[in-house]
Amino acid sequence: MRKLEDLQSLIANSVAELKYPAYPAELYEPISYILALGGKRMRPALLLMACDLFGGDVESAIPPALAIEVFHNFTLMHDDIMDNAPIRRGKVTVHEKWNQNVAILSGDVMLIEGYKLMMQVRNDILRQVLDIFNNTAVGVCEGQQLDMTFETSDNISIDEYINMIRLKTAVVLGGALKIGALIGNADQQDADLLCEFGEQLGIAFQLQDDILDVYGNPLVFGKQVGGDIISNKKTYLLIKALELVKGAQAEELTQWLTAKRFDNAQKVTAVTAIYNQANVRQYAEEAMQAYAEKAFEALEKINLPEENKQYLRDFADGLLVREY
Amino acid sequence: MRKLEDLQSLIANSVAELKYPAYPAELYEPISYILALGGKRMRPALLLMACDLFGGDVESAIPPALAIEVFHNFTLMHDDIMDNAPIRRGKVTVHEKWNQNVAILSGDVMLIEGYKLMMQVRNDILRQVLDIFNNTAVGVCEGQQLDMTFETSDNISIDEYINMIRLKTAVVLGGALKIGALIGNADQQDADLLCEFGEQLGIAFQLQDDILDVYGNPLVFGKQVGGDIISNKKTYLLIKALELVKGAQAEELTQWLTAKRFDNAQKVTAVTAIYNQANVRQYAEEAMQAYAEKAFEALEKINLPEENKQYLRDFADGLLVREY
Repeated sequence: MRKLEDLQSLIANSVAELKYPAYPAELYEPISYILALGGKRMRPALLLMACDLFGGDVESAIPPALAIEVFHNFTLMHDDIMDNAPIRRGKVTVHEKWNQNVAILSGDVMLIEGYKLMMQVRNDILRQVLDIFNNTAVGVCEGQQLDMTFETSDNISIDEYINMIRLKTAVVLGGALKIGALIGNADQQDADLLCEFGEQLGIAFQLQDDILDVYGNPLVFGKQVGGDIISNKKTYLLIKALELVKGAQAEELTQWLTAKRFDNAQKVTAVTAIYNQANVRQYAEEAMQAYAEKAFEALEKINLPEENKQYLRDFADGLLVREY
Repeated sequence: MRKLEDLQSLIANSVAELKYPAYPAELYEPISYILALGGKRMRPALLLMACDLFGGDVESAIPPALAIEVFHNFTLMHDDIMDNAPIRRGKVTVHEKWNQNVAILSGDVMLIEGYKLMMQVRNDILRQVLDIFNNTAVGVCEGQQLDMTFETSDNISIDEYINMIRLKTAVVLGGALKIGALIGNADQQDADLLCEFGEQLGIAFQLQDDILDVYGNPLVFGKQVGGDIISNKKTYLLIKALELVKGAQAEELTQWLTAKRFDNAQKVTAVTAIYNQANVRQYAEEAMQAYAEKAFEALEKINLPEENKQYLRDFADGLLVREY
């Protein structure tokens, strides 16, 4: 089996070779621009990995893997408009560098270009691959809508939250793995199981991200620790805390959530103390473990040689035990 | 052959039956909303007409015809954001009724829903139909980008303008006819010729629209006569006038184009007088006739019974000789 980082490099090189027309420049330049910003290329690499695991021809899986990457960057381009984000991966976002209309329309073309790439699969799996891609794409849009709705909602349940992160993050992982498996000639059941593995692992990964944002080691964790707390982001930790805390503590939490002016470090310390008292970290870790467990259960049922399963187990372990 | 208005009704009824999930409401309600605003349903009806002309099963062509309509409404939803348009077909636009983010994201989902509908064709034509749809969709985006770029450009040539209206308006007509023909089991050459017919007719139609905006009978023409002049829209007439007029007349035209404050009626009268002196109406009508001619030439080469060709001729005549 090829190493994951080799597959990521293969994708990075293939992305660099994607060529778009020169005219109209304002339509196509933003596509090359956002694709050149980099990123770990994890989603498309997973598609190649799935194909490789089932003994498929990895080269033939490159166009659909690129489809996943182009689609992902389409969502970033449009999400950045919606989130009013000035910076993406250290560079100015498309709607800031050009303008909002350019970002809308270039994003639209990227979605279509994603379909063009995704269609480069064998006839016998074309319809199924596109069905998966359609469902994945709709899921991501639903997840983004729910994420935006939750920002201004007061009563989000844990179930609603899990469903949102499943749609926004996990279905793409599941979809990429399933498409790769089908290209690698996996049978239907194994492809479904690998999809399940990816989706459950994706949820676990997102929950870990919520935990790391508060409890990550600032020297190792890439982002500002407590960023979610500062921005009142509805994470698993916050939703669980809102569910559990009562009395004076509930009042204090509400005060921090509604405060217009505050010292960032003070807010992070105070809210973290409430999280600690309510024990929400443990709840979050148990939930994360439960989803990881489901991922591993699906994995065990896949009909693959032990060596290949071990590869997937190592991958999942590496993803979930990042340094705190 | 079925009457065009019957096919339009069939589409209208089928659009009304399209159902989208209830959740998330902000994602799906705008789709039902914009689809219910009505319109002539001409594009999808043309797809059905093409299928019918070649003796195909019209019912089986309904989902791909709906794909064309859903796609068209996706472009309207995003164009309305880009044009900052408050009203569409007498109703508030989606970005005004909800907000801009909703209009971006609902539009994205509509494009995906378009693909879902377009995939509902036979396996033997699936790949070709989707290739046509991809190219059509990219063309429309390119046309929209060029249209926006032209707004702030000074030196647009007639060729650039024709290419823009071809992309923005005509390729969808050609694409819809071609897909319908393929569903109706037309052979490749006939499908290509019908596509050519639609594309050339679409350009002629758009040129007629430019002429009608200035020279249409205000009692019959649906829009405000002179609206393009008031807004400095780069139409065939304006581009041709800018190319032809010299000296004092050129100065006068430039003054009207750069004037910040003016009386609408005065501007329309003055610019129309310049158009008349430069004879641009005649140039536009000759160009329109030339594209209509190309459409009819393609039509004559199609291998269809005389009766069916007559149907297409009557359709084109009806489209191009609207009351002035």
